[in-house]
Amino acid sequence: MAKIKVHVFLKAGVLDVQGKAVEGALQGLGWSGVSNARVGKLIEFDLDGVEDPQGEAKKMCEQLLANTVIEGYRIEAA
Amino acid sequence: MAKIKVHVFLKAGVLDVQGKAVEGALQGLGWSGVSNARVGKLIEFDLDGVEDPQGEAKKMCEQLLANTVIEGYRIEAA
Repeated sequence: MAKIKVHVFLKAGVLDVQGKAVEGALQGLGWSGVSNARVGKLIEFDLDGVEDPQGEAKKMCEQLLANTVIEGYRIEAA
Repeated sequence: MAKIKVHVFLKAGVLDVQGKAVEGALQGLGWSGVSNARVGKLIEFDLDGVEDPQGEAKKMCEQLLANTVIEGYRIEAA
């Protein structure tokens, strides 16, 4: 069984409104040194019964987990 | 300047509906070996002008980034 972690994030150049909101809120709380905040998703699951967990996870990202028009992804299989 | 990564996830025992949806969708697409899917948030930002980035990030989690009633968090400072 493989433990898969998929990090899905907005591509550089795509406005990250959630990140901007976090950045503004942290600055408002006094952390003026916060910059470049980005918010992404981390999807974790167990994967059983496949030969190539990394390759299957890539297919999952392309088909379902990431919107590849605006999002990138990074896969860790352990 | 420190690069901070904060992983915010629902505590074990809290129903993760988004994770269940991902799990069901992947199984529906033919990946029957998928289980225990959980979806969390990954917040990344740069932090300038503080003595102890890890400690400040912990304060940010407690005050804003995580709902500590139902969510846990993990901080990486680099």
